[in-house]
Amino acid sequence: MPPPTVLIVGLGFMGGSLASALVQAGWSVLLHHRRSEVSARAAALGYGEQILALPDGMGRAQIAVVCTPVSTIVPLVRQLVAMPGQALISDIGSVKGPLCRDLADLSRAGRFIGSHPMAGSHLQGLEHARPDLFQGCTTVITPVPSTPQAGIALIERCWQAVGSRIHRLPPDEHDRAVAEVSHLPHIAAAAVAAGVSDASLALAASGFRDTTRVAAGDPALWADILLSNRLQVAQAIRTTTGRLHELLVLLEQGDAQAVAGWLSQGQLGRQRFELLRHLPAQAEGGGEE
Amino acid sequence: MPPPTVLIVGLGFMGGSLASALVQAGWSVLLHHRRSEVSARAAALGYGEQILALPDGMGRAQIAVVCTPVSTIVPLVRQLVAMPGQALISDIGSVKGPLCRDLADLSRAGRFIGSHPMAGSHLQGLEHARPDLFQGCTTVITPVPSTPQAGIALIERCWQAVGSRIHRLPPDEHDRAVAEVSHLPHIAAAAVAAGVSDASLALAASGFRDTTRVAAGDPALWADILLSNRLQVAQAIRTTTGRLHELLVLLEQGDAQAVAGWLSQGQLGRQRFELLRHLPAQAEGGGEE
Repeated sequence: MPPPTVLIVGLGFMGGSLASALVQAGWSVLLHHRRSEVSARAAALGYGEQILALPDGMGRAQIAVVCTPVSTIVPLVRQLVAMPGQALISDIGSVKGPLCRDLADLSRAGRFIGSHPMAGSHLQGLEHARPDLFQGCTTVITPVPSTPQAGIALIERCWQAVGSRIHRLPPDEHDRAVAEVSHLPHIAAAAVAAGVSDASLALAASGFRDTTRVAAGDPALWADILLSNRLQVAQAIRTTTGRLHELLVLLEQGDAQAVAGWLSQGQLGRQRFELLRHLPAQAEGGGEE
Repeated sequence: MPPPTVLIVGLGFMGGSLASALVQAGWSVLLHHRRSEVSARAAALGYGEQILALPDGMGRAQIAVVCTPVSTIVPLVRQLVAMPGQALISDIGSVKGPLCRDLADLSRAGRFIGSHPMAGSHLQGLEHARPDLFQGCTTVITPVPSTPQAGIALIERCWQAVGSRIHRLPPDEHDRAVAEVSHLPHIAAAAVAAGVSDASLALAASGFRDTTRVAAGDPALWADILLSNRLQVAQAIRTTTGRLHELLVLLEQGDAQAVAGWLSQGQLGRQRFELLRHLPAQAEGGGEE
């Protein structure tokens, strides 16, 4: 079974990384970007063949992966599905519930399956693309119960080819999970970094460095992500402010044991993460910077 | 001028690291711990000479550094100052205001100067001590206006010998700064890690990993730190919950530009940190893990 041909639509950091990883895995890759100078640059980098007119790419591909900002995905998928061919369409959007509801008819028909590779960087743009980005990362796919098995097998094969582990989740469960492990950390990092005075920064060390790292991410891109998942994100923020108010009360009461108990919940969550992460550590490789 | 003799009181991770670093710099080090098996182990590791009775150490030292938990420092310094000799006493407590007020008479008399090396680890105990811990880190010292210059010069010489940059700050300014760049990041990390479900952890990647790293720290130790700095910490928490409420409103309004603006403040804070940190990058060495 020869590798399918994949059309990548949108050649930023993620799309460029996926294209370069698939080429490295021996797959045929077609490259499209709304600005043709970007797809020309990707082709010059050896990431695949430049496609100027999207219908030409759709006519030749078995899989099309939309790698554009979350809010642009639904209309773009609707355009693609009306083009020639029967390519399975996927995406890499970091929010899945609203998108999969909007595209439910296409999921049932086997034309669309949502994907979300849990990899990324605060660096943006094709020039930072890396073929090893997906090595050892988890990629969530969000088929619906009636999505045909052949499509699921095809998209899983694509992500496995670039080194990903597959994790199937219903779209809403995916969104709650990323609110907790990705969107909330980003918000917390931004809130901590925003409050810091110049005088204080002179004392900032490794704790500040790591806790605020993701706050460097592109604000427009992240606003798009947070708004796309606003219900789950709002819930995660409210849980967090509730926790912070609890700590304020304990500090006011001066109860060392209760403050330690509050901190222990965080320590426990972190320990559960480390435990989970170390179990498959050998298989992980360089997927996470 | 030969290096002075330094008495280290309390041989956990920080005290052990300071002892080993001073020995490596060619200084004479005396080791005391309330449990003699710990000072015996430190001596066996080559970190200095074991001292069983504290007055013997105080009689021989030019500097004594108290490396015990924050809440134990004031009574311990009071004991030390009543012992033989005229050693300058310092500490490594991560909160300075209340402590320096309690010891103001000794600061004026030149017997006490507060120190806080901005280095650490979530690993605890003598067995993790590292002679390079202070290389390139900033150490804050908090003399009062009437502290004699000779004492200031002596404690600066000690921290510089282990590779630290010196930063002089009034105690309360130090406490506000560490609330912002150390205590608040710890609290945010714990709040994010505490809320995570097992199902979500399967999707946790590098963002979660870095944002929550410090939450692994010892809860009892951190409860002690937060309570010692409770006024500044409470202020930092209130500022943060205020910011989070602001974001909730913007998400509800669905205003992408305003959400991006909110995130930009975090990005800017992070960029200011990176800028400050990269300027003296050559001089920093391995001080931060």
